[in-house]
Amino acid sequence: MTLFGAIEAGGTKFVCGIGDARGGSIETATVRTRDPDSTFAEVGEFFAQAARYGPLGGIGIASFGPVDLNPASPRFGQILATPKPHWEGTDMLGRTRAILDVPIAIETDVNAAAIAEVAAAGPGVKQLAYVTVGTGIGVGLVSEGHPVHGLGHPEAGHILPRRHPLHDGFAGICPFHGDCLEGLASGPAIAAAWGDAAQDLPDDHPFRAVEADYLAQLCMTLFLMMAPERIVLGGGVMKQETLLPMIHAGTAERLAGYFGGATSAEDMAARIVPPACREPSGLIGANLLAEKAARDAA
Amino acid sequence: MTLFGAIEAGGTKFVCGIGDARGGSIETATVRTRDPDSTFAEVGEFFAQAARYGPLGGIGIASFGPVDLNPASPRFGQILATPKPHWEGTDMLGRTRAILDVPIAIETDVNAAAIAEVAAAGPGVKQLAYVTVGTGIGVGLVSEGHPVHGLGHPEAGHILPRRHPLHDGFAGICPFHGDCLEGLASGPAIAAAWGDAAQDLPDDHPFRAVEADYLAQLCMTLFLMMAPERIVLGGGVMKQETLLPMIHAGTAERLAGYFGGATSAEDMAARIVPPACREPSGLIGANLLAEKAARDAA
Repeated sequence: MTLFGAIEAGGTKFVCGIGDARGGSIETATVRTRDPDSTFAEVGEFFAQAARYGPLGGIGIASFGPVDLNPASPRFGQILATPKPHWEGTDMLGRTRAILDVPIAIETDVNAAAIAEVAAAGPGVKQLAYVTVGTGIGVGLVSEGHPVHGLGHPEAGHILPRRHPLHDGFAGICPFHGDCLEGLASGPAIAAAWGDAAQDLPDDHPFRAVEADYLAQLCMTLFLMMAPERIVLGGGVMKQETLLPMIHAGTAERLAGYFGGATSAEDMAARIVPPACREPSGLIGANLLAEKAARDAA
Repeated sequence: MTLFGAIEAGGTKFVCGIGDARGGSIETATVRTRDPDSTFAEVGEFFAQAARYGPLGGIGIASFGPVDLNPASPRFGQILATPKPHWEGTDMLGRTRAILDVPIAIETDVNAAAIAEVAAAGPGVKQLAYVTVGTGIGVGLVSEGHPVHGLGHPEAGHILPRRHPLHDGFAGICPFHGDCLEGLASGPAIAAAWGDAAQDLPDDHPFRAVEADYLAQLCMTLFLMMAPERIVLGGGVMKQETLLPMIHAGTAERLAGYFGGATSAEDMAARIVPPACREPSGLIGANLLAEKAARDAA
């Protein structure tokens, strides 16, 4: 059985794995994200010791962004303008190839997660959005089997929701847009608006109604824009389990019976779901990317 | 040379054509949209007299919506719930096949227009949004060569823009959402808010700033959601040529330098453009659909 390498490259940690998309990882390692040299040195050590399992068929990288995904671009595979110190211009693809010269594919972390969730959903799901609500709000999209990017990749965390009335005095924290979705509804935005992290606020705290309304507006916009059969909501903030049914009800109310086949909160409960993957969706997506890279190279 | 049939089926008229996507139509006819029986009878007469050009390779239908586009559905090719009298449940595909038993493809009018505009754009445009601003606001999307639909088809005309301050007292006219984009910025919404149709309002009328802001919000959302290399703005309201540069400036301002490769009003002017097709994009799209149907059947 051919094994593949997977790298979920995040802003705080890199998770590396050896395995395949069906069986999952047989070994993983977590590397703290420091500067590129130190980080990739540790990634290289992981894959060097993993050589005892035999040669890898390919590696998939599920990367934080913004990252250049245009194969025709001279910066293909590189991190673009980012506030993250040391990482702008880092050649994720080249540094991985320097570790192991096998077929390598790269995608955004959220697109990779969307790829994994499409595979987990089975037939009937051709359009899927994967949303992570945490330090930021990221959205990955798959349409008819391929991850969506064009002029850059989607950054749907920065759409402009309408303000919730309970949130009127809050300016938002996005350095670009102030009160875009990420500026209003990410984990740090919740802490900035209400003084505590989501998990530390009491169960009856009004932040939940505000947060659910913003995420319902995102789901409404995703349905209207892309008509996904499934929206997967993950990330740290979504560990607040009371949010999901409020988002179902809010999305149904906002759509107001308009969208074909998705009119009630029950319909929404079937469509807006937590991640189906057992391992992090991004890591499984990276495995699927590696397998595709190997097939494409064969 | 094989000729193809094209039907652009709209709420007020059906435009039928014979031709191909490269040469355009050699003959067209416009049929007023009445009830389905009368309308398709006239469509049938057009194709019957067009038989003198020889057999057609296929027919493409660019249909008003909502229309069932899922080939696995028992209602495939039928008009779904619509306020338009007599048309709900109309089997567009079956009625066309009864006219001429050739390979037939159906898409939404806006998706067909997007297909035509991708072909006109040439290489480098893989993601494209076609927007029509008229009686309603419709959005068609092509991603990597295929029209986007899943759970229904996109209805991005119904997203929720933030209110322009000059528009505060206006409730909007969408029967489902009130003040969604279509409820605020379609042709009838302009007339309802300002008392006159767009073309009858003076050049310095404030409606232009309001309209451009809403359409800039749509463009921003499209960029953030789908990362299209090109957004095509068509439809009757866009005949107001002063709007387009205001939309360029407004989209750049709203994106605030965030979106990769598209930060200035000049960038926006290169990306947000009028239709490139000489004939109506929907009719050319229908021709392209017909050619694909013929290829798929071969």
